[in-house]
Amino acid sequence: MRIGIYAGSFDPITYGHEDLITRSLSFVDQLVVAVATNVSKQPMFTVEERIKFIRSAVADDPRIEVREFDGLLVDLARSVGATLSIRGLRAVADFEYEFQMALMNRHLNAEMETVFMMPRLDLTYVSSSLVREIARFHGETVDLVNPIVHRALRERFPAA
Amino acid sequence: MRIGIYAGSFDPITYGHEDLITRSLSFVDQLVVAVATNVSKQPMFTVEERIKFIRSAVADDPRIEVREFDGLLVDLARSVGATLSIRGLRAVADFEYEFQMALMNRHLNAEMETVFMMPRLDLTYVSSSLVREIARFHGETVDLVNPIVHRALRERFPAA
Amino acid sequence: MRIGIYAGSFDPITYGHEDLITRSLSFVDQLVVAVATNVSKQPMFTVEERIKFIRSAVADDPRIEVREFDGLLVDLARSVGATLSIRGLRAVADFEYEFQMALMNRHLNAEMETVFMMPRLDLTYVSSSLVREIARFHGETVDLVNPIVHRALRERFPAA
Amino acid sequence: MRIGIYAGSFDPITYGHEDLITRSLSFVDQLVVAVATNVSKQPMFTVEERIKFIRSAVADDPRIEVREFDGLLVDLARSVGATLSIRGLRAVADFEYEFQMALMNRHLNAEMETVFMMPRLDLTYVSSSLVREIARFHGETVDLVNPIVHRALRERFPAA
Amino acid sequence: MRIGIYAGSFDPITYGHEDLITRSLSFVDQLVVAVATNVSKQPMFTVEERIKFIRSAVADDPRIEVREFDGLLVDLARSVGATLSIRGLRAVADFEYEFQMALMNRHLNAEMETVFMMPRLDLTYVSSSLVREIARFHGETVDLVNPIVHRALRERFPAA
Amino acid sequence: MRIGIYAGSFDPITYGHEDLITRSLSFVDQLVVAVATNVSKQPMFTVEERIKFIRSAVADDPRIEVREFDGLLVDLARSVGATLSIRGLRAVADFEYEFQMALMNRHLNAEMETVFMMPRLDLTYVSSSLVREIARFHGETVDLVNPIVHRALRERFPAA
Repeated sequence: MRIGIYAGSFDPITYGHEDLITRSLSFVDQLVVAVATNVSKQPMFTVEERIKFIRSAVADDPRIEVREFDGLLVDLARSVGATLSIRGLRAVADFEYEFQMALMNRHLNAEMETVFMMPRLDLTYVSSSLVREIARFHGETVDLVNPIVHRALRERFPAA
Repeated sequence: MRIGIYAGSFDPITYGHEDLITRSLSFVDQLVVAVATNVSKQPMFTVEERIKFIRSAVADDPRIEVREFDGLLVDLARSVGATLSIRGLRAVADFEYEFQMALMNRHLNAEMETVFMMPRLDLTYVSSSLVREIARFHGETVDLVNPIVHRALRERFPAA
Repeated sequence: MRIGIYAGSFDPITYGHEDLITRSLSFVDQLVVAVATNVSKQPMFTVEERIKFIRSAVADDPRIEVREFDGLLVDLARSVGATLSIRGLRAVADFEYEFQMALMNRHLNAEMETVFMMPRLDLTYVSSSLVREIARFHGETVDLVNPIVHRALRERFPAA
Repeated sequence: MRIGIYAGSFDPITYGHEDLITRSLSFVDQLVVAVATNVSKQPMFTVEERIKFIRSAVADDPRIEVREFDGLLVDLARSVGATLSIRGLRAVADFEYEFQMALMNRHLNAEMETVFMMPRLDLTYVSSSLVREIARFHGETVDLVNPIVHRALRERFPAA
Repeated sequence: MRIGIYAGSFDPITYGHEDLITRSLSFVDQLVVAVATNVSKQPMFTVEERIKFIRSAVADDPRIEVREFDGLLVDLARSVGATLSIRGLRAVADFEYEFQMALMNRHLNAEMETVFMMPRLDLTYVSSSLVREIARFHGETVDLVNPIVHRALRERFPAA
Repeated sequence: MRIGIYAGSFDPITYGHEDLITRSLSFVDQLVVAVATNVSKQPMFTVEERIKFIRSAVADDPRIEVREFDGLLVDLARSVGATLSIRGLRAVADFEYEFQMALMNRHLNAEMETVFMMPRLDLTYVSSSLVREIARFHGETVDLVNPIVHRALRERFPAA
């Protein structure tokens, strides 16, 4: 059984993340969605909220486990038996950072392989940080995030 | 009448920004220079100072309106009737960030088009953040920013 | 009156090119679509065919003039009175090449400004060379090029 | 059963290619190594030679099928039942070209997913074209390609 | 006598930095390793610790002087008589930032030339910030930094 | 004595090349300018002409030797005792290609180090191939190449 891991801060999960989750299920049997608690900047949503959003997005798919993690990705991979780290690539800047991380992770754990995938083209410009900024100024996010996240953003930034 | 918008934090305006303003006037009839108040990092100059610097740089050109803005660029564009967002491109890193923003803005407002321009070659390495850093250590900024900004930087960081 | 110029080999014109033409008409009054005859590689279509395809794509829009050109873009710009060169940007590789060309063109003719635009997102991966390759192997090009080009490609590469 | 496809011109196969083949076997059950016959430039080795080199490199691994192909990758994928296209990424330039190809392939066949992998770090600078150039001038290729290719290169370019 | 300068925050020095120091000694007679005290973010190690680590790494090589600096690189270069600034290049993102800095430095001091070098390939993914992050989670850093830094990281982040 | 090598096809030498030669003399004692004879594409000028142009550009500087070479750069470096290969970097695309070549050269000859330099900013867009194209269409090259090359281009492409 191939176990993949998809790690991030998911603050909040976007349709871009959901697309990657769906795509990765075409070649892993089980996927661990790992929500980083140690994000350097102050997150907009608590780790509990972020996990709740992901769970509601992926519904009750038995192949997906959502959990928090605090530490090195390679250590989590070892503890859950994952051999693949799934990463989305949208732009050159992504690529360089991801390349460096993947090389370092390979150095730290030669058993874990990193594979990169492209999100759906019309989601390439969607990122959690842009979603947060749009929501802050009451811009429309209905087609960028799923309904539960959309409602949470509306509540967080109620129109005057 | 074509109205363009050139948004940024302008902290402070550099000769690179002034060059873009001049160039864009060759294909818009009116240009709104929009000074972002909601910059995440603490700016060096207040929004009032930044606006004053821009106004003195563009003098009394009746085609240019300088104003602050707080919110989404697409909302400002709608409210002032602008159909073009002008962006400078200096490097690949700029390009990727600008591409993502332009795609998101097009998604939020299909009526606003983003056009990219190159600054004068010898201004490609000038940025507000570099100018601030040079001024902090009393380096020479006389050929990077206009005289009023130059004086303001000198006053802010008087030589011992 | 602002006259723009959009130059290329258009071998053949794709929906990506047509999108750029439409977008550029939002800020130029007249657009010269200039078909390069001196392409280094053997083109798939003659310059006459390429011009015919473009004319049928832009129909009878009086703001658009389609013509061949052989020489330097800056010389053509001078002779037709164009002050803007319109270029599409899809990727970093585009950006660097275009940047170099724009700098050289500015050096050769300071009166001509180059502005860059993004094509519609779902056309970013469409290029004439990819279209030719797909057609050569009877792949589907119906949503990449307009009907007259589509038929010409079918005739050029009839299915066995 | 997951079937992957790894296509290229392999002129000749390098240790970089072999590394990708090994890595991809960690998440596909079967791998089709597809040797393009329609390479635009004159290849150094015939398609028969190139296939022979690959077969000897992967020995008798029953999970690997080596075959030539002439046409669109998506058509080959359909005919062999492959749902994953495996691509190596070494540099930004690779990334952009691969991104465009992957988007076009997704457009032509939504069932085939493209996944990207990094070769072993010390093989990132190895490419078939560099190997050919080094061999042409009798440079050492013993640690860049496997022994059978190494001997073939020596025979092709005998030292004076 | 050619004097080079290699400036950075060295928080802490990695084997990547040490590799650059060694390489640069092949074409400068004297190298000033300049430790920036004015790093914007809170450093992990004090400037005294960072200098001590570098000194112990380069041992008693009489060609190397380690010192702190606070200000503009070009001013330091003038005061120590250095005519070359040595910079490592690992990735495209490095390149763009370094290019901008080098152009600005050339503008501020035409006598100082910037030369770029590549670190050893297997050190390209090593950076001080990654080392700090790995150490924080008790990952292995023994082959990324020299023994004295390794011990200091262990002491800073003792395993539970 | 430090010997550097600056290799290229120099078809023809531009002011960008000359700038690099001057800059590199600030840290090598002797510079071998190596003109590649085995350029894949048909050169515009013969190797004799290209060498003549370089010699007239660098005049009688005793520190510079101009010679042709046919083979691997690392072999030439060994035979002339050069330990540094000088390369100009203008853009990201340059960087990636140069990086790959430098890694391969380091692999083939660990004694030769590659150092990268930036040309003068206003020469970053000048390349031999652009110069040839401009000359072909009688564009002005007087500020891109030195007078002897300028005359040769004029003779090669006489105005009608």
